[in-house]
Amino acid sequence: MRLGAIAESIGISLTGGGEGLDIQKPASLGNAGPSDISFAANEAAAHSVQSSKACALVLPVGVVPDRPSFVVKNPALVFARIAAILSPEPAPAPGIHPTAVVGEGVAFGVNVHVGASVTVGARCVIGDNVSIRDGARVMEDCQIGANTVIFENVVVYRGTRIGERCRIHANTTIGSDGFGYVRDSDGTHVKIPQLGRVVIEDDVEIGANTSIDRATLDETRIGSGTKIDNQVQIGHNCKVGKNVVIAGLSGLAGSVTLEDGVMIGGAAAVADHVRICSGALIAGKTGVYSDITEPGVYAGPMAMKNMEYKRFLLSGKRMDRLEKKISELKKEIEE
Amino acid sequence: MRLGAIAESIGISLTGGGEGLDIQKPASLGNAGPSDISFAANEAAAHSVQSSKACALVLPVGVVPDRPSFVVKNPALVFARIAAILSPEPAPAPGIHPTAVVGEGVAFGVNVHVGASVTVGARCVIGDNVSIRDGARVMEDCQIGANTVIFENVVVYRGTRIGERCRIHANTTIGSDGFGYVRDSDGTHVKIPQLGRVVIEDDVEIGANTSIDRATLDETRIGSGTKIDNQVQIGHNCKVGKNVVIAGLSGLAGSVTLEDGVMIGGAAAVADHVRICSGALIAGKTGVYSDITEPGVYAGPMAMKNMEYKRFLLSGKRMDRLEKKISELKKEIEE
Amino acid sequence: MRLGAIAESIGISLTGGGEGLDIQKPASLGNAGPSDISFAANEAAAHSVQSSKACALVLPVGVVPDRPSFVVKNPALVFARIAAILSPEPAPAPGIHPTAVVGEGVAFGVNVHVGASVTVGARCVIGDNVSIRDGARVMEDCQIGANTVIFENVVVYRGTRIGERCRIHANTTIGSDGFGYVRDSDGTHVKIPQLGRVVIEDDVEIGANTSIDRATLDETRIGSGTKIDNQVQIGHNCKVGKNVVIAGLSGLAGSVTLEDGVMIGGAAAVADHVRICSGALIAGKTGVYSDITEPGVYAGPMAMKNMEYKRFLLSGKRMDRLEKKISELKKEIEE
Repeated sequence: MRLGAIAESIGISLTGGGEGLDIQKPASLGNAGPSDISFAANEAAAHSVQSSKACALVLPVGVVPDRPSFVVKNPALVFARIAAILSPEPAPAPGIHPTAVVGEGVAFGVNVHVGASVTVGARCVIGDNVSIRDGARVMEDCQIGANTVIFENVVVYRGTRIGERCRIHANTTIGSDGFGYVRDSDGTHVKIPQLGRVVIEDDVEIGANTSIDRATLDETRIGSGTKIDNQVQIGHNCKVGKNVVIAGLSGLAGSVTLEDGVMIGGAAAVADHVRICSGALIAGKTGVYSDITEPGVYAGPMAMKNMEYKRFLLSGKRMDRLEKKISELKKEIEE
Repeated sequence: MRLGAIAESIGISLTGGGEGLDIQKPASLGNAGPSDISFAANEAAAHSVQSSKACALVLPVGVVPDRPSFVVKNPALVFARIAAILSPEPAPAPGIHPTAVVGEGVAFGVNVHVGASVTVGARCVIGDNVSIRDGARVMEDCQIGANTVIFENVVVYRGTRIGERCRIHANTTIGSDGFGYVRDSDGTHVKIPQLGRVVIEDDVEIGANTSIDRATLDETRIGSGTKIDNQVQIGHNCKVGKNVVIAGLSGLAGSVTLEDGVMIGGAAAVADHVRICSGALIAGKTGVYSDITEPGVYAGPMAMKNMEYKRFLLSGKRMDRLEKKISELKKEIEE
Repeated sequence: MRLGAIAESIGISLTGGGEGLDIQKPASLGNAGPSDISFAANEAAAHSVQSSKACALVLPVGVVPDRPSFVVKNPALVFARIAAILSPEPAPAPGIHPTAVVGEGVAFGVNVHVGASVTVGARCVIGDNVSIRDGARVMEDCQIGANTVIFENVVVYRGTRIGERCRIHANTTIGSDGFGYVRDSDGTHVKIPQLGRVVIEDDVEIGANTSIDRATLDETRIGSGTKIDNQVQIGHNCKVGKNVVIAGLSGLAGSVTLEDGVMIGGAAAVADHVRICSGALIAGKTGVYSDITEPGVYAGPMAMKNMEYKRFLLSGKRMDRLEKKISELKKEIEE
């Protein structure tokens, strides 16, 4: 694709010409060939631009380009858009594979792809351009919005609603039973039937091998624009807001509320019924056991404001100082 | 279903009449419609009963009902039983789907359901009313007890034994190789063949995307009545007792023993060869590195009795106090 | 198999004769029958040898055998080799199952097994003796080296390269999108297309329900001989060296480098862009937030050398001592 056409497509003008260059693909600075476009995320990264063979660049404001470039405030964002134009994800052709099993009363939109040995349960409503890849199982009474991709071997339990433009990666499970039991007097755990459902709004991406449980009676809800990584566990009845980010191996116990825009680092865990307010950023490996009501960065095995946590971690050194002071005082007294 | 029929079915008599009411479904207090039954788990929750549209309730002893109600000691338990009666899980019809692949010498009980593109390996013994859902793989020489459900895309490795009335949720793996290697003198890791098996007793429920490894030589065993959540890892040779509860994202390394009734919170981890005694409750995110021999609540990165751990977490504040005291002493001396 | 034949096959001579014994299977000391071979890993374990019914043993140097035995420096290693000879894993017969779906231009080696309802995407190159088990999905443009086993329901995304003699266990996902977004000024997260791939070198074993993400632009690489457990998350652009060990429920965020031979305990987490040097052993549940440049054992919520961490955990007791000393000083002054 011509660099000039890319400029037009993203609505940003080039610095240093090069409209006629034929761009082959997006690439990292180090691996770019002479027909590739690359980027430097910030001024620090821009130092390694010179040795790159890329014929065009996306650069942060403040860096003087040595070749045709887009000079912009947010290079990663602009590069992401260019990459999406240059290298669209390969998509299987529309059609229902003969080995797929489709239940009664399913309504398909136009251009739907249903892959090999897929299950689509009775009464599902599948939007336009949806792609359900090989081996995925969508049980009865589900709704899937237009342009959503359900990747290979994903399992979506009955009654789940998934919005438009979502992506659910391989081996993920949506809508299995919440973990709810009542202890009987004899020590056995009696199952509480899990009769609710999962609702996933638009533009949600969910990684591989993640699980989101159906609600006990009402809804587990994932807000629009939210991005969830691999190996994440989301318990029954959780309400995850819009544009939330949850990194890999993190878990929400039951009935957790994450307000819009909350960010959760990897391997963090949130206890049941906790509410975390907008503007909170939970660091990786943090344990959250009580509500967070003020924006800020939280860390540690029992979420503390980040500065408190750093102080906590320094306790060994602080105690050394205290011990030294005590010895000095003792000496002074005894003299 | 008539409320009177429900009362009869659970063997509890109604307070406030209403035997003739036609109950449609179980619902939460907030979302119940005028034909639904709802519940308050305890006296605190009973405050929000008044505004509920439910026509019948399950209430804790001590609350005076304002409509037809079951007034009981354990409302959640009674509501769970009513919900199971009112909303039984939809079950696919018995029969073996034409796309399923069944090995030689398989013995099926009556009313078995084998879904689309399922694999049942040679010599498996499948009990009455078992349901193996679409895309599940049960390899050779497995036994599955009556009334058990193996959900979509579950994989059960060869030689596994699963009891009666178990439920194994989607994308879970039972019986894959334990993580066992011996380091050779050249730094390479030589695989120890994993020749044992997994035995799951009766009434066990296992969540989605969980893994339970086969034993090296003998058995990995999950005791009857035990409930395991999503994203759990259970290593080879573990012995998990009866009526144990393990919440999501927790892990047991190899050869761990959990005695009957142990409860493990979410995202906890237990090191290899550790034994945890009956009556121990391990809080979420706890790391357990040595045997626990006394009942109690344990928490923290290296399991401590809960009070000790809370004290440990307060170390920053305690040190502030110590520093202040030292300064005061210093002043006293210098005066 | 005759014990003498085993001796010949592993190139180690017997102590105490018994060449003619017919050995049935490898077994643990406690469960071995009178035709089985068992082992004691070290001198401590050798105490329980006497009561074992095994007819032959593998014993550590220093233990005097009471029956036909191999007396060796590393009994676990020798026993692993004997077990592999006596109990080879059952392997399905070569051939492509009629329900498998194979894309255009796929190149198969000899003796390949492709199981029921497997997908092999267009242009894949599949080596000799490869086994792709039932329900596994290998998307387009993948390469799989000779003698590798892809277990049931594994999903391998497009363009992945897997070496020889690898084993990828059930429900694992290789090559799904990395977790990369740029925040736009309106708070939405714009996806960075994930255009790179995963390369897995030779002799790698990967457990069940694990995820390894494709790189943003270049490669996520797993070095030869590396062993990865269940429920592990490896982010985009990671470089994992040779003979690395990563135990269950651990996670590497993006762009992590593990040098050759690094060992990571269970449920540990490594933050993005961190590099861990050869010779480092990361204890279970450790959080690693910055580079580790010296060999040693690291532990704790913010990786510390193990001794420092133990001291840190003792802070409660140390503070008790400090408080006592301060009180004593106060008394001395006041007297």
